[in-house]
Amino acid sequence: MRIDLALLEKSIAVVIDVLRASTTIVTALANGCQEIIPVAKVQDAQKIAALKSQQGEKILLCGERNGIKISGFDLGNSPREYSAESVAGKTLVFTTSNGTRALERAVSAKQIYVLSLLNFRAVSDLLCEKTEDIVIFCSGSNGREAIEDSVCAGMLCEKMKGCAGNSIILNAAAKSATHLAQEHSNDLFAMLRKSKHGAYLIDQGFSADLEICAGLNTQSVVPVVQDGLIHKQCDEPLRVPLANGKT
Amino acid sequence: MRIDLALLEKSIAVVIDVLRASTTIVTALANGCQEIIPVAKVQDAQKIAALKSQQGEKILLCGERNGIKISGFDLGNSPREYSAESVAGKTLVFTTSNGTRALERAVSAKQIYVLSLLNFRAVSDLLCEKTEDIVIFCSGSNGREAIEDSVCAGMLCEKMKGCAGNSIILNAAAKSATHLAQEHSNDLFAMLRKSKHGAYLIDQGFSADLEICAGLNTQSVVPVVQDGLIHKQCDEPLRVPLANGKT
Repeated sequence: MRIDLALLEKSIAVVIDVLRASTTIVTALANGCQEIIPVAKVQDAQKIAALKSQQGEKILLCGERNGIKISGFDLGNSPREYSAESVAGKTLVFTTSNGTRALERAVSAKQIYVLSLLNFRAVSDLLCEKTEDIVIFCSGSNGREAIEDSVCAGMLCEKMKGCAGNSIILNAAAKSATHLAQEHSNDLFAMLRKSKHGAYLIDQGFSADLEICAGLNTQSVVPVVQDGLIHKQCDEPLRVPLANGKT
Repeated sequence: MRIDLALLEKSIAVVIDVLRASTTIVTALANGCQEIIPVAKVQDAQKIAALKSQQGEKILLCGERNGIKISGFDLGNSPREYSAESVAGKTLVFTTSNGTRALERAVSAKQIYVLSLLNFRAVSDLLCEKTEDIVIFCSGSNGREAIEDSVCAGMLCEKMKGCAGNSIILNAAAKSATHLAQEHSNDLFAMLRKSKHGAYLIDQGFSADLEICAGLNTQSVVPVVQDGLIHKQCDEPLRVPLANGKT
């Protein structure tokens, strides 16, 4: 039996919701949204959005229940909705079934990062430079573990072992996740399609989302959670555009 | 560096707020309150209390900010207010600065118990019969560790080592807490008086509360948190009153 005294205050928290909240958050920030306000309850999201709109902020009310856009909301939880055209310069008030709960659990950590497959390299490279302990929070699905989050967590553990070697000590759940990652990381898209929530999303017409969610290292944005807001990591390496338009 | 995948779903959570939320919760349940609804925000507490009162429930609106009873509330967070006379048969809507946050962090655990010094033996005896991993959540004070919670956590670790022996593996924070407990558990009242929040409470006129909060094993109630409500453990040993009125 293990007894852990949760001392998140000294640790870095990593929050994972591969299908789809962390993918959507990464996509929105990559496409220039100002910041994201995660909110647990639909009613609270509506109130906050109304208040901020009155104050002249450009607000989008975003979120899902059972994977489906909430009635009256601007956007759901499909990363495809979060194009630069729709989100650039705007503040998103965002409520999802499981993602918000994982963020709440991480709330007292020293630093909180949002991890998806899209920004895997960006976040894990950053974590390789840290010395603090890391606690990973997987959103799962309706209170249960979701394989896609465990695989992503396991990939992070493997990467950290690669960069910090023997100084990494994994707990039992992290070890299991590492085994899962070894089994599934060679075909992430197949893993997502076979996952319980993936199959549900395909049923609901979101199969195109799964391709995006499986897009390993397609984004370089590092979302940090601070004072209840999600925004881009400030100390990202400055990207100077080259003459050919590439960075 | 340690990497923990937080997998609370398979663990038992223990929530500690010695000064004073867990002491008050234990006292209220011991004195016959029906159940306790923990709420993070003052406004939400007021709404829930109003709604339940309208539905005919006997409600008390309870809680503090900065240790002081919230204006317009029935009770604050002093265990001395939670006599059988005031709470028996009633539902308490309860909001405290730090205690509610610790409960939120524990929310996805398989089972959640509330521990104070008062019900230390009752809870720890119960935990000695369990095989699940245990995660301890200390409320602390304004996001910082509080010595009184760490000492109580450390006492629990020591007790568990006593009953389960070498099969107990403590994380680093739990080990530190165990050392703190060894240093301070012989005079808990002195430890509380010297603690930061204890000194603040004495300043605010609550020194009599500290004596109650230091009362090791004075209550046998085991508060469990289920579906957002705190109530007495159902499978407590049935206490048949003896002829002399003692149990």
